Amino acid sequence: MKKFYIASSKQGQPPGTPVYTGTRTDVPIRIRVIHYNEELLEEHEFSTVEETFAYAEAAPTTWVNIDGLNDAPAVEKMGQYLGLHSLIIEDILHTHQRPKMEDLGDAVYMVIRMLSIDPENDEVNSEQISFVLHKSALVTFQEHSGDVFEGVRERIQKMQGRIRRKGADYLMYALLDAVTDHYFKVLEQFGERIEGVEAALMEDPYPELLNEIYAMKRELLYIRKSVWPLREAIGNLERGENELFEDGTQKYLRDLYDHTIQVIDTIESFRDMLSGVQDLYLSSLGNKTNQVMKVLTIIATIFIPITFIAGIYGMNFEVIPELKWKYGYVGVWALMIAMTIGMLAYFRRKRWF
Amino acid sequence: MKKFYIASSKQGQPPGTPVYTGTRTDVPIRIRVIHYNEELLEEHEFSTVEETFAYAEAAPTTWVNIDGLNDAPAVEKMGQYLGLHSLIIEDILHTHQRPKMEDLGDAVYMVIRMLSIDPENDEVNSEQISFVLHKSALVTFQEHSGDVFEGVRERIQKMQGRIRRKGADYLMYALLDAVTDHYFKVLEQFGERIEGVEAALMEDPYPELLNEIYAMKRELLYIRKSVWPLREAIGNLERGENELFEDGTQKYLRDLYDHTIQVIDTIESFRDMLSGVQDLYLSSLGNKTNQVMKVLTIIATIFIPITFIAGIYGMNFEVIPELKWKYGYVGVWALMIAMTIGMLAYFRRKRWF
Amino acid sequence: MKKFYIASSKQGQPPGTPVYTGTRTDVPIRIRVIHYNEELLEEHEFSTVEETFAYAEAAPTTWVNIDGLNDAPAVEKMGQYLGLHSLIIEDILHTHQRPKMEDLGDAVYMVIRMLSIDPENDEVNSEQISFVLHKSALVTFQEHSGDVFEGVRERIQKMQGRIRRKGADYLMYALLDAVTDHYFKVLEQFGERIEGVEAALMEDPYPELLNEIYAMKRELLYIRKSVWPLREAIGNLERGENELFEDGTQKYLRDLYDHTIQVIDTIESFRDMLSGVQDLYLSSLGNKTNQVMKVLTIIATIFIPITFIAGIYGMNFEVIPELKWKYGYVGVWALMIAMTIGMLAYFRRKRWF
Amino acid sequence: MKKFYIASSKQGQPPGTPVYTGTRTDVPIRIRVIHYNEELLEEHEFSTVEETFAYAEAAPTTWVNIDGLNDAPAVEKMGQYLGLHSLIIEDILHTHQRPKMEDLGDAVYMVIRMLSIDPENDEVNSEQISFVLHKSALVTFQEHSGDVFEGVRERIQKMQGRIRRKGADYLMYALLDAVTDHYFKVLEQFGERIEGVEAALMEDPYPELLNEIYAMKRELLYIRKSVWPLREAIGNLERGENELFEDGTQKYLRDLYDHTIQVIDTIESFRDMLSGVQDLYLSSLGNKTNQVMKVLTIIATIFIPITFIAGIYGMNFEVIPELKWKYGYVGVWALMIAMTIGMLAYFRRKRWF
Amino acid sequence: MKKFYIASSKQGQPPGTPVYTGTRTDVPIRIRVIHYNEELLEEHEFSTVEETFAYAEAAPTTWVNIDGLNDAPAVEKMGQYLGLHSLIIEDILHTHQRPKMEDLGDAVYMVIRMLSIDPENDEVNSEQISFVLHKSALVTFQEHSGDVFEGVRERIQKMQGRIRRKGADYLMYALLDAVTDHYFKVLEQFGERIEGVEAALMEDPYPELLNEIYAMKRELLYIRKSVWPLREAIGNLERGENELFEDGTQKYLRDLYDHTIQVIDTIESFRDMLSGVQDLYLSSLGNKTNQVMKVLTIIATIFIPITFIAGIYGMNFEVIPELKWKYGYVGVWALMIAMTIGMLAYFRRKRWF
Repeated sequence: MKKFYIASSKQGQPPGTPVYTGTRTDVPIRIRVIHYNEELLEEHEFSTVEETFAYAEAAPTTWVNIDGLNDAPAVEKMGQYLGLHSLIIEDILHTHQRPKMEDLGDAVYMVIRMLSIDPENDEVNSEQISFVLHKSALVTFQEHSGDVFEGVRERIQKMQGRIRRKGADYLMYALLDAVTDHYFKVLEQFGERIEGVEAALMEDPYPELLNEIYAMKRELLYIRKSVWPLREAIGNLERGENELFEDGTQKYLRDLYDHTIQVIDTIESFRDMLSGVQDLYLSSLGNKTNQVMKVLTIIATIFIPITFIAGIYGMNFEVIPELKWKYGYVGVWALMIAMTIGMLAYFRRKRWF
Repeated sequence: MKKFYIASSKQGQPPGTPVYTGTRTDVPIRIRVIHYNEELLEEHEFSTVEETFAYAEAAPTTWVNIDGLNDAPAVEKMGQYLGLHSLIIEDILHTHQRPKMEDLGDAVYMVIRMLSIDPENDEVNSEQISFVLHKSALVTFQEHSGDVFEGVRERIQKMQGRIRRKGADYLMYALLDAVTDHYFKVLEQFGERIEGVEAALMEDPYPELLNEIYAMKRELLYIRKSVWPLREAIGNLERGENELFEDGTQKYLRDLYDHTIQVIDTIESFRDMLSGVQDLYLSSLGNKTNQVMKVLTIIATIFIPITFIAGIYGMNFEVIPELKWKYGYVGVWALMIAMTIGMLAYFRRKRWF
Repeated sequence: MKKFYIASSKQGQPPGTPVYTGTRTDVPIRIRVIHYNEELLEEHEFSTVEETFAYAEAAPTTWVNIDGLNDAPAVEKMGQYLGLHSLIIEDILHTHQRPKMEDLGDAVYMVIRMLSIDPENDEVNSEQISFVLHKSALVTFQEHSGDVFEGVRERIQKMQGRIRRKGADYLMYALLDAVTDHYFKVLEQFGERIEGVEAALMEDPYPELLNEIYAMKRELLYIRKSVWPLREAIGNLERGENELFEDGTQKYLRDLYDHTIQVIDTIESFRDMLSGVQDLYLSSLGNKTNQVMKVLTIIATIFIPITFIAGIYGMNFEVIPELKWKYGYVGVWALMIAMTIGMLAYFRRKRWF
Repeated sequence: MKKFYIASSKQGQPPGTPVYTGTRTDVPIRIRVIHYNEELLEEHEFSTVEETFAYAEAAPTTWVNIDGLNDAPAVEKMGQYLGLHSLIIEDILHTHQRPKMEDLGDAVYMVIRMLSIDPENDEVNSEQISFVLHKSALVTFQEHSGDVFEGVRERIQKMQGRIRRKGADYLMYALLDAVTDHYFKVLEQFGERIEGVEAALMEDPYPELLNEIYAMKRELLYIRKSVWPLREAIGNLERGENELFEDGTQKYLRDLYDHTIQVIDTIESFRDMLSGVQDLYLSSLGNKTNQVMKVLTIIATIFIPITFIAGIYGMNFEVIPELKWKYGYVGVWALMIAMTIGMLAYFRRKRWF
Repeated sequence: MKKFYIASSKQGQPPGTPVYTGTRTDVPIRIRVIHYNEELLEEHEFSTVEETFAYAEAAPTTWVNIDGLNDAPAVEKMGQYLGLHSLIIEDILHTHQRPKMEDLGDAVYMVIRMLSIDPENDEVNSEQISFVLHKSALVTFQEHSGDVFEGVRERIQKMQGRIRRKGADYLMYALLDAVTDHYFKVLEQFGERIEGVEAALMEDPYPELLNEIYAMKRELLYIRKSVWPLREAIGNLERGENELFEDGTQKYLRDLYDHTIQVIDTIESFRDMLSGVQDLYLSSLGNKTNQVMKVLTIIATIFIPITFIAGIYGMNFEVIPELKWKYGYVGVWALMIAMTIGMLAYFRRKRWF
């Protein structure tokens, strides 16, 4: 639930105050620098942001990756070095941002949300990732160190694809693409959960499915909230005319934009399917109640009348002529069986069983 | 309920008549002036609006805050001093305005709604706040004196952040930001109520939840009505090209606009969640009915037939051979137990328990 | 019902045929003229339209108000005097128009719908009012003489507000404003009906509420149909650049436009509330059925088994050893009481009561 | 059902192949020509399209009306004479077109759908009507000869209205107006059916109403599908700047456009009403079930306990002291009556009857 | 289910890697070339893509059709020959594309989805078809060899229609038209399934219909996902100003665009109908439950009271005076019959049967 309302932790503080609003952990900030072009590849891990400045300044492409935002002053220093407005530094630290892109003229700021499924409880979590593209350097800020960027890191190291031949703008695209690809993976897992519920429903709907459907609807709401503005942000990036982006990269951004549309299409399909699944549940519940009712009605309507007959001849009137008949008992049985058969025929005609 | 229809109290009066339409209280109007720049800070409390004019005229930034709109003539005088059209003066007093922004050329008029949750009954109330930005002065009109503006007042007094270095346009932004931040707080409380209902539903749904869900839906409708036009108003303010706003403040308005979008996103998520919660309630109600039906059906279908058997041998026919059998009674018991076991097996197979 | 489909009474007739399609009454047409400026005030009541022409021509502002459209030839004559196209004359008489504004260059034609609540059956009725603004004259056509315009008439007579200082364009605004204000009154009454239904629902829902909810939904549909196009029409009027409207009046039209948006907001809120009210009804119906079921189930599951026990010992087998036991009868009672307590405990655990 | 999917009968054939896809009948094609201006009126009926060419060429206005599209070659010949593209000739014959308008420069092509209610089964059917406006001639293609155009024909013959003074563009407007007017008639009948269902629901809902509501929803879907694109087509015609339309006719088209909006408004209202009617049905069904349940529960909860009492004293224990009491029987009756009164009081308090 | 989420099989690979993501089969790639103009017709089948280059280069129109995308290197070679960006080659092979059109300046790339109904399980499947229009050559890539293009092939072979007189742009249109026509066929089959469910519902709704309705809703979601972007793509193609498309072909594209709108209209109608069908199912389920309830209630309320009477006179009190009455037994019967008649009259009045 926590994730649906944004903690207004900065209340009472002037706008632009750099305070980290995410979960505080003791893990120290981790700063990694990759400095590369087609020939060159340097990798460093630093403990202060100042050490990275020399690389960010230097000519070939530099990727500064900062994991963990506990150290607000460090983030602020980095932001100031990059010439960012205090509001943007605040956005980097205030980890409940709606995805957006801001063209700052000599830099591009972008904040997106990375989705992941908590393996313990199948809940979808999201983490804020900020990108600052500044001259030949790309600085990324992550809440936690994750493995989504590992693929790109490896491609740089192993010189796979064209990434070493391209600049920081292509690197930014490659990282955004990695995040978007990861959305598909999350949706795939989500799709499998829907599939599971569907199968369970077709077979034998049990009440817990309801809570499961509701939980999935909520998760989907959450995913949607993260992805819809992403499309807009990437669309703005693509349509934008920032000089930091080469013409050649534009084509890749277009492709990325198509992917975000596909992600949204899939989310909308899942929404519709969950509605369908819920309707199916409700209907099959109605069906079951109807089934139970029929059993009750059949039993009751057969036995209530014949029990009445038995009651009649259990009366203690002094004068009940039938009681003295030789075939009275047998006759009563015959009558009861006839009544039962009649009832059964009636139900059969009504197709109750 | 009152809040959903707008009392047309001005009916029969010519448009532009300055009449206060809010709840009348005896609390007198309260006029506070803060006059400041980076070096200077003067605070005054006056009883007539005329006393404020000298400050509003003077060079450094002036914030005139008027609490309570009982005193319509005073508000009118202030409005006339600010050169406002009689329709706008009417809007300030007519406290059921839809949030809007009007660029008056030499001044900017903005009306917004401040939300608060009544701690007594958890109901959301709203109060109208009007802003008039006029040269270096900002005049704010509040229905009641509230504490939302206190944070900003304190920042001015304690010289926190950049507020003392900036003009009246930044002050207006800072106040709007305080109001928007307060929305998050209201939504946070609202989110907790939804969470509470959710938890109650998962555990044990009781009929009163229904009224609670309905009440929350209504509150949300009301919040929505206040917030949607706010986004538009702030968007207009941001896109507007009024010279009273410095270029530097524009960036802050953009940030504020992002916040209103986030508020709206959250409201829409809450709406969807309330629908989900309602569906969940209805389904679990269906489930419970089904459960009750099953208990009834199991009991009835087991006992009705064996009660019939007992009825049979309670009959008083002279000739009922079974009654004379030595093991008749034991046999009947055996028959009954067999029938019961059969029934139970049938229900088990149908997974009724 | 009648009001939802438009009688195509002109079928088979050439377009532009002036035929009154409203309810025909014997009340004769009523023509009232007010001729005024700041100094002057003349009021006349005529029986033929021709008599009004002299005033409409003359310099100060003239308001010609025509009540009742029975007299189609008179309306046609007036329309021809005003230089209206036959299609517009037809629209004035064909009293099922969708609100619209038409800029005729030297005149402005506007048709709107006036709402009123029939005090007898709480039904909302609507009446068509046409405005033709022509030079310094405003001609209004009403189906019935109503009292909505009385406030404006009075203000002219008593020189209240600025109306006597302004021209016919302001008069048109003042009348439109009176109609829009009346909408708020109608909605207020409507809101009270919803409130009544809400309260009844919370207390004790009875089946007739259903028809009431349905009736209100239908009424709201009808109101909506009248108001939505009005907003568009007033928006067109405001944005329009007809020279008949002074610049000063534009500001008033903007205010009026804001009011129509507020009316629409309120209607949409009512729609949502009615949906909510209906859901509440359905859910509380489900709750009641569930409640009834529980009572039945509790009674039946308690008594059916113990009745069976009684049936057992009502059997007439010769050998039923228990019958001869000294404490048999007491024992059976003990057994029955134990069973009952067990059942009650079970239901208590299931929270059935 | 057939009407919802479009038979793709041209599959495998090259685009632009002129094949009639409607229902084939043996009724031969019927070609009627009216040639007129203010002084002149000639009417002819021909059996080949070639005979009409002389009139279409000649100066005064000519209306060529072709009923029945069986004779594809004749239609093709006519199309080629009018200089139509083979795709448009195909559209004329392929009678499942979505209404649309195409400005061909020297001609205007328009296809619309004529609605009619089959008196036998109350089903709504639609027929395709194509218009080609070419110079001073209007050619209309109908699937079957209907009577919608008769009113216009008569007006030409009797010189009613301004039709004889106007050209072919006005004729096209007049025919479109006749079709739109007919929509109101169809909707009026439809409205009466909804009204009937409403009344039946209020009184005594029976299950067949459900199928009726469903059938109406389907019909409305079908009408909608025909009318929505019509508005667009007429809007395009009005906004279009084809020289074949005189400035004077533009005003009429605007009026026609308003009518199509009104038709759509009415359809949307009907849709909403049908949803409301359906909700009403479902709710009143729920009410009835609840009612039935209450009766059952009242009877069962009153009699089951007292039947149990009777069962107790029907037991054959040797020692049942009450059986020997003098007022035992009377006492049991008293007990039973007391229990019944208690139960009734309970139900009364719960407002069950 | 598989079809709703897109396997992100390229994860971890650099963007633009040519990997086929569809189902792998052993069927080898099949390359067919048709080289034609009005006089000439050559047909070839090659095993390597290089062989086709000579034809693609040469003057008359060339259609290269590649069935099966197993052979990624071959597709890559062809793409490089056509001068395609590596992202587009990836799109051709990554067979889960959203339909789209890309104007590459000297070429046009289009990807669409071909629908087919699996005859075995009535499921709708879709296959990706890519078109590259390059100078006088059209290259098409299909996942499997299907028969949708056979009609066009035949028209080329038999010189039907205008296809041999036109260029590669018309050929592309003809193939797109064939695919769109096939949509109608698929929808027709779909419509028949809905019709079947409708008929079954009207007669006798059985629970399996529910799963069928749900399955159809899912299928429709899937079709929708394929067709909505197609409209956009064809609209872009039509509005586009690529020089590869002659002016004459534009008209055909407009026609095609109309067809896609018609497809979408039909899909939306089907969606609405399926909702209607589902509502009908739920309502008729409610009706049935109500029916069952009534039978139970009638039987129970008639027999429970009279069984109670029988129970009364089955009691063993020593003093039950009625038992000794001569007409006691007959009287009891009379009483019981009277009660039954009374109950039946009550139910009849309530219209329960």
